[in-house]
Amino acid sequence: MALKTANEYIESIKKMSPHVYCGGKWVKNLLNNKITRSMVMANAAIYALAEDPKNKEVMVATSHLTGEPINRNLNVARSIHDLDMRQEMALLTSQTVGTCNYRCVGCDAINGLASTTWEMDRDLGTKYNDTFNKWLKYAQDNDLAVSGAITDAKGDRKKRPSQQDEPDTYIHLVEKRSDGIVVRGTKVSQSGAIGSHETLVLPGGALREGEEAFALAFAVQNSAPGITYICQYNAYSAEREYCEEEAELGNPIYGQRETSTMVFDNVFIPWERVFLCGETKYCGRLVSRFAKTHRMNCGGACKVGFADLIIGATVLAAEYNGVDKVSHIQEKIIDMVRLSETSHACAIAAAMRGREEPKGSGVFLPDDLFGNAAKLNIANGFWEIIKYAGDIGGGLVVTAPRLKDLENPEVGPMLKKAFSSAAPADKRLKVAKFLQHWSAGLHGPGTWHGAGAPQTQRFMFSVLTDFEAKKKMAKKIMGMKEE
Amino acid sequence: MALKTANEYIESIKKMSPHVYCGGKWVKNLLNNKITRSMVMANAAIYALAEDPKNKEVMVATSHLTGEPINRNLNVARSIHDLDMRQEMALLTSQTVGTCNYRCVGCDAINGLASTTWEMDRDLGTKYNDTFNKWLKYAQDNDLAVSGAITDAKGDRKKRPSQQDEPDTYIHLVEKRSDGIVVRGTKVSQSGAIGSHETLVLPGGALREGEEAFALAFAVQNSAPGITYICQYNAYSAEREYCEEEAELGNPIYGQRETSTMVFDNVFIPWERVFLCGETKYCGRLVSRFAKTHRMNCGGACKVGFADLIIGATVLAAEYNGVDKVSHIQEKIIDMVRLSETSHACAIAAAMRGREEPKGSGVFLPDDLFGNAAKLNIANGFWEIIKYAGDIGGGLVVTAPRLKDLENPEVGPMLKKAFSSAAPADKRLKVAKFLQHWSAGLHGPGTWHGAGAPQTQRFMFSVLTDFEAKKKMAKKIMGMKEE
Amino acid sequence: MALKTANEYIESIKKMSPHVYCGGKWVKNLLNNKITRSMVMANAAIYALAEDPKNKEVMVATSHLTGEPINRNLNVARSIHDLDMRQEMALLTSQTVGTCNYRCVGCDAINGLASTTWEMDRDLGTKYNDTFNKWLKYAQDNDLAVSGAITDAKGDRKKRPSQQDEPDTYIHLVEKRSDGIVVRGTKVSQSGAIGSHETLVLPGGALREGEEAFALAFAVQNSAPGITYICQYNAYSAEREYCEEEAELGNPIYGQRETSTMVFDNVFIPWERVFLCGETKYCGRLVSRFAKTHRMNCGGACKVGFADLIIGATVLAAEYNGVDKVSHIQEKIIDMVRLSETSHACAIAAAMRGREEPKGSGVFLPDDLFGNAAKLNIANGFWEIIKYAGDIGGGLVVTAPRLKDLENPEVGPMLKKAFSSAAPADKRLKVAKFLQHWSAGLHGPGTWHGAGAPQTQRFMFSVLTDFEAKKKMAKKIMGMKEE
Amino acid sequence: MALKTANEYIESIKKMSPHVYCGGKWVKNLLNNKITRSMVMANAAIYALAEDPKNKEVMVATSHLTGEPINRNLNVARSIHDLDMRQEMALLTSQTVGTCNYRCVGCDAINGLASTTWEMDRDLGTKYNDTFNKWLKYAQDNDLAVSGAITDAKGDRKKRPSQQDEPDTYIHLVEKRSDGIVVRGTKVSQSGAIGSHETLVLPGGALREGEEAFALAFAVQNSAPGITYICQYNAYSAEREYCEEEAELGNPIYGQRETSTMVFDNVFIPWERVFLCGETKYCGRLVSRFAKTHRMNCGGACKVGFADLIIGATVLAAEYNGVDKVSHIQEKIIDMVRLSETSHACAIAAAMRGREEPKGSGVFLPDDLFGNAAKLNIANGFWEIIKYAGDIGGGLVVTAPRLKDLENPEVGPMLKKAFSSAAPADKRLKVAKFLQHWSAGLHGPGTWHGAGAPQTQRFMFSVLTDFEAKKKMAKKIMGMKEE
Repeated sequence: MALKTANEYIESIKKMSPHVYCGGKWVKNLLNNKITRSMVMANAAIYALAEDPKNKEVMVATSHLTGEPINRNLNVARSIHDLDMRQEMALLTSQTVGTCNYRCVGCDAINGLASTTWEMDRDLGTKYNDTFNKWLKYAQDNDLAVSGAITDAKGDRKKRPSQQDEPDTYIHLVEKRSDGIVVRGTKVSQSGAIGSHETLVLPGGALREGEEAFALAFAVQNSAPGITYICQYNAYSAEREYCEEEAELGNPIYGQRETSTMVFDNVFIPWERVFLCGETKYCGRLVSRFAKTHRMNCGGACKVGFADLIIGATVLAAEYNGVDKVSHIQEKIIDMVRLSETSHACAIAAAMRGREEPKGSGVFLPDDLFGNAAKLNIANGFWEIIKYAGDIGGGLVVTAPRLKDLENPEVGPMLKKAFSSAAPADKRLKVAKFLQHWSAGLHGPGTWHGAGAPQTQRFMFSVLTDFEAKKKMAKKIMGMKEE
Repeated sequence: MALKTANEYIESIKKMSPHVYCGGKWVKNLLNNKITRSMVMANAAIYALAEDPKNKEVMVATSHLTGEPINRNLNVARSIHDLDMRQEMALLTSQTVGTCNYRCVGCDAINGLASTTWEMDRDLGTKYNDTFNKWLKYAQDNDLAVSGAITDAKGDRKKRPSQQDEPDTYIHLVEKRSDGIVVRGTKVSQSGAIGSHETLVLPGGALREGEEAFALAFAVQNSAPGITYICQYNAYSAEREYCEEEAELGNPIYGQRETSTMVFDNVFIPWERVFLCGETKYCGRLVSRFAKTHRMNCGGACKVGFADLIIGATVLAAEYNGVDKVSHIQEKIIDMVRLSETSHACAIAAAMRGREEPKGSGVFLPDDLFGNAAKLNIANGFWEIIKYAGDIGGGLVVTAPRLKDLENPEVGPMLKKAFSSAAPADKRLKVAKFLQHWSAGLHGPGTWHGAGAPQTQRFMFSVLTDFEAKKKMAKKIMGMKEE
Repeated sequence: MALKTANEYIESIKKMSPHVYCGGKWVKNLLNNKITRSMVMANAAIYALAEDPKNKEVMVATSHLTGEPINRNLNVARSIHDLDMRQEMALLTSQTVGTCNYRCVGCDAINGLASTTWEMDRDLGTKYNDTFNKWLKYAQDNDLAVSGAITDAKGDRKKRPSQQDEPDTYIHLVEKRSDGIVVRGTKVSQSGAIGSHETLVLPGGALREGEEAFALAFAVQNSAPGITYICQYNAYSAEREYCEEEAELGNPIYGQRETSTMVFDNVFIPWERVFLCGETKYCGRLVSRFAKTHRMNCGGACKVGFADLIIGATVLAAEYNGVDKVSHIQEKIIDMVRLSETSHACAIAAAMRGREEPKGSGVFLPDDLFGNAAKLNIANGFWEIIKYAGDIGGGLVVTAPRLKDLENPEVGPMLKKAFSSAAPADKRLKVAKFLQHWSAGLHGPGTWHGAGAPQTQRFMFSVLTDFEAKKKMAKKIMGMKEE
Repeated sequence: MALKTANEYIESIKKMSPHVYCGGKWVKNLLNNKITRSMVMANAAIYALAEDPKNKEVMVATSHLTGEPINRNLNVARSIHDLDMRQEMALLTSQTVGTCNYRCVGCDAINGLASTTWEMDRDLGTKYNDTFNKWLKYAQDNDLAVSGAITDAKGDRKKRPSQQDEPDTYIHLVEKRSDGIVVRGTKVSQSGAIGSHETLVLPGGALREGEEAFALAFAVQNSAPGITYICQYNAYSAEREYCEEEAELGNPIYGQRETSTMVFDNVFIPWERVFLCGETKYCGRLVSRFAKTHRMNCGGACKVGFADLIIGATVLAAEYNGVDKVSHIQEKIIDMVRLSETSHACAIAAAMRGREEPKGSGVFLPDDLFGNAAKLNIANGFWEIIKYAGDIGGGLVVTAPRLKDLENPEVGPMLKKAFSSAAPADKRLKVAKFLQHWSAGLHGPGTWHGAGAPQTQRFMFSVLTDFEAKKKMAKKIMGMKEE
């Protein structure tokens, strides 16, 4: 049976021993460290979703390799409907965990690879697609958690990868052997890699001739020798690490998005796991296929799910403060909905105008223009949404004491009196804490950069728009002759 | 054969004699007055579109009454695909004429009536749906141009229709006779009613018990006794009326959107043309079904077509001025595309999430939330788009002399020298004139109010959003117990 | 006595015979053509303002040349208070005429010249400042209307003035003679030059060595031989030209901003009127001093005056439609005020942080950063303001019939019924017409480009901001060592 | 001598023993707890500023009570210049500490009290002004740190203070005695009260007859019996509490804004410290005078200082990443400057249009409209500014490891390689950490609510605008008769 339960996933994690460093400490057991544990618990919740029959259409797909039911996170989209369910999955997972579906990047990488390895084999006579399908069948059969690693550390942005003073700012080839390749370098902002069974590594962008050493796509197992994961660490990490109990926190169980810097120190990758090696011409294509898929999902629908949570809590805050009937409050909530649903519409349109790419491959990818619109709208919209959440949440979002202080025998009674309103103090403070997490935390810039910073989407608009057609239409109505 | 040619439409107009007043004159022949002629020519262009085989999927549908091919403007949507083609038609017609498809309101009124008359018959045992279908078959068989009249003059907005000092600010029943009804009152902002064969009149909004006299839906023929059309008249009307030739104008042939105040002075409507009479309970439903359809089309996709024209001309202006490679110019053009395609995405999503309403009726209506999002986004976005068009178009958009002045033997040569740039003066001035039409004319507030002012769409968001579901999601993640 | 009355100004205009072409006709008498007349009437109203004792502090200054009272439009600012009254004058004139104070550009050119000719004389030993002061004394003694001509036609923007295929796209020197210079070329968008006694011509921007032929500043008399004024002509021109009476129009007496393309065909300028000739190094300085002054006034305070009119009429429209107590209407009006007063604040700050420039010259110029902020904020804000005006004004702003139609014996009574509301139809339509003028006319792009398109102001921010100081502050707090 | 040094301030703090609870612990010594220490250090830096001769004009004023030099934080503004220097002080202190000048609220409360106690004495024959001046002289003579307490906990916002189920949600009178009053209740969001020598307590808003028990203004000493300070505690608190050294943090020394919930449990206030008791009519006035002052300073100029720091660090981030010459980066930085300087302009205009209030009192208060504009613009603008900071700062702003990790012998070398760019890794990470503090922390909602949530400022616009004058102007130009 191809579907793991949440418990089976957690058990499988216990067996892994990745080399993880977090906030000054080496983490022996992901489940014993409060920070890394939150990542694992979020992934477990994604597994659990697929167990619930009411989510079947969204969470479960049919493998085109085996015909078996598989978790949609491992599915290659073969139809418009698949694309539509993919973006609805992004919505549902966000609504459920309020943080990353850590299998999301991997899923979109799978689709980029399915399309591009097929094309390389057709054009170049390589066997990448076979190799990839074998790996994918293995992943599907075992319902593995697969993360994706795209963003190199990049060094000085004025320079190409090969011009960097420090070559390890990009993943690159060290040695090509008969049994595989040796790679080194750095991928950053790796969401959930620590708790995934596998990571798909893709190039960070388009490459030119002469940059073959950076043209690499492969799968690597968690805990593979030579990999070190250095976790992000910030105020929210410290709060979680040192809290008395998780219930004090904004997102108690699933936490914020946990990423790591993933350092490859001469890691060996056998050929059965290599899906591109040196074909610079296909790197841009591979990344852009990944990107158009990821912008629809992570860029668009995922953040709509976050917005749903924020809107829900904001309405609660308004009710608890006794201001839910005030017209300007209602207008702001309407704006939150408008911004969020606009991005949802773009994600749906991206799915609906998706198409097979390349023709004959059987792989369906979403429409690029609408996918970029989904991401770009929510990147800006999300800042508006958290602004309004902070507004309606009130000063408490910033100046609240600890939730635990309510239980202190001396100050607890004072706080319960002070913060009682149309609801008891504990409810008010709990909602304020939740809104603090969104409105005064990492999600603003996180949403901005996830699936690529907005300037990339803007650039795509200039590439994807048929300006000649528009000029022609305008000339026709003006009665201006075409030259 | 159910499809009229553009010429056949023009010929049919020559046979009509509506009572039309425009800018201080009674218009005997719509084709001889430059203002009213532009409206007729725009409608003719819509007819012509359906003649072109490459537009067949978009412009031609299959009648569910006869199985014959019909112009999509007369089609009742029976599927998601119908809805999708409907919004694509709105896009195509706007790109083609740069003004109203004057059959658009009528088309959406047809869909609202198809759904609501079916429901009334089911609930009340009336025969409205039969009556309506007979009329619709006649319209389809003769490929009639049908306009729609929704907006009453409304008087003092603080008062209900029946409380107005002046009852003629709303269409209302005067007399119910055995052979039909007699109505009077005023509909305003009637796009293209003067050059349509028929006008569908709907209530302007939801009604309450006691307001039966205002609960009326019917079809009325152009030129019916008692109807006077008083045309809008503004600066752009004067410019057209007094120009030496239409080529001087911003939209030479099709002009701006031409509307009229339509005054009903005891007009007789036979029962065969009455589709609702006194059923106040169904008025809100009828209007909201019309509205959700119209917001997707007129509110959303139509303005995307306008934006395409503006973007095309703006790119031309940048090229002619020699600034098309300048980065801030390119950034602004990207924003124009983003704003426009966002609304397109919302219209597509509205179609794709459309559904049969009511169940069993066979009539498909778009999703209301996304339809409202389409309209609301473009209402604001359009002002941004024309701002950028005016920016990139340059000062000439405001301060250009007449296009005709280029031909004057004295000043023409001066102007040709003065305004030569990366393109000859005549091209620069022509594009400036086109952009003036959009950026310094009626389209800003016109787009705002078309398909209902944005506050209405905002209100719909508050009605259509499931806030309880969002509150529940948030509580679950917070670990807050449901009461 | 140095102050002309409005009547004296009008009489003086009757004696001039400029070579004016407007909409296909040569205008013999500015007062007999409805379009050119509106420009003269606006200027007359500005003269009249200075007659009213209650405006004395704002409208009347003391000549630093003679000690006599002069119209502030001819004043060289010698103090912070002068700068403050200058921007308050811009506000007052806009509130009064709802169009250009056509003496505004000239006033700011006077200040740029006063500062820069002084500097040239100090640096170069020239006598430009003396020459200028003599001319200025003459202008002050006769209270002349002085317009300013800055913007060249510019041709292909990718090329420098001397590289243009068509040299007449810029004003340039043809011949230097013992008694003066001969110039030719084109200035565009010349507000009110036709009805001014004098025009000050400045270079259009900074110049480089080798571009001496374009380095010219001089005063030229209206009607000087070789000058042709070709008026702008657009829909609003046609409406005015062909209206039965001006009362029908949006701004009945003063009209829209009237500009012309000003063609110089070998015009002779005697040395007594030449204030810069060949000193390329001082051109950028001269223009930027003009610009910083003009952005505070025309760019900033002037549009606040327009906004006051629009806000006033919008509140009337809300009252007449019976919606003035509705919360979203009130919120929008608040936004209109906020946008407008923000720019007013920037203009005040520009005056208050003004300073003598160059030291020793006695000439006070406003702060550049705040002047640019004034212009940039209102450029964007004005589009918001007219959007809201069009919103609250309602569909009537677009679809209203002629005001005159109310008087027609047949349709007038129908319209009076149809449009009666919380106020009679004539009031509602009058306000709608006024708002149409602002919201569906030329003022959106006009405000954008007046005093330079916003991209220029944005560029100035990058030049004027002390980024090193800010970096230093940040480093200090971070505890980062300075290199 | 009336000016304390930073060291003298710190010494004075050591002698106080307030009842402070912070994150689950009672704080015995403010300087030994990392969180409370940051507050004290920020205040010390404000004292230090006044020691530096180059800041004299901004930081030092002359007491109107004694003629002695005093810290401007204790000054009653007696002129436009005082107001201007007051807002410049807000700018300078923010640029210096990147957090609250914790004496700011107290300063604005002093001005509100100076004006209103004078007015009460004039109207009612009370002696509040004398009492207040005696207390103020004492504060000035000892250069005390004075905080201000305005915001009550408020309870259910639908209810008036006296209707609350829990009376302690507002500060209220318990007993009036011959020697003073006894009060109880809660003030929230009290910036820096824990480390101030005195706190001025004002009513939270306008009051009505019957609400006399809530009409209270008084000064209370730090550590007065019955007062408990319960500190805010959030992720940033935890990060500071548990960091190895402060250098790891975003704002190492001065921290984030530290506030507390201040609980009054039957606190005795002698009459020499009571400045209003029961005079409900004067409460609205007192609060609005405080508010107009505070909006210019805390609302406006203070956040401009924050923006300067953010802009400085953002430029550094761009340089370190090698993208400082990229045009879209430069455009965004320009926007950051525009947003910030706009608010600065509003603060300057508020000062410059300030006036004596009430006439005869000698107290100068800023212009209310412009003060509200300052706050409202930056409230929205700040979110834009931190959005751009997060954008240009890059993904690192969210996903960076600890700064300390650079020093770890195992992962440090990896990180130094991975994050080397146009600058070494430690600089990049330091700037990323600083931007995280601003862009992914509490300052977004903090700025929004500081000096009152923006809806309050919007409301003030509707109250302060003379709509009748604007209607009149518009009518005059339209030629519409006044009724």
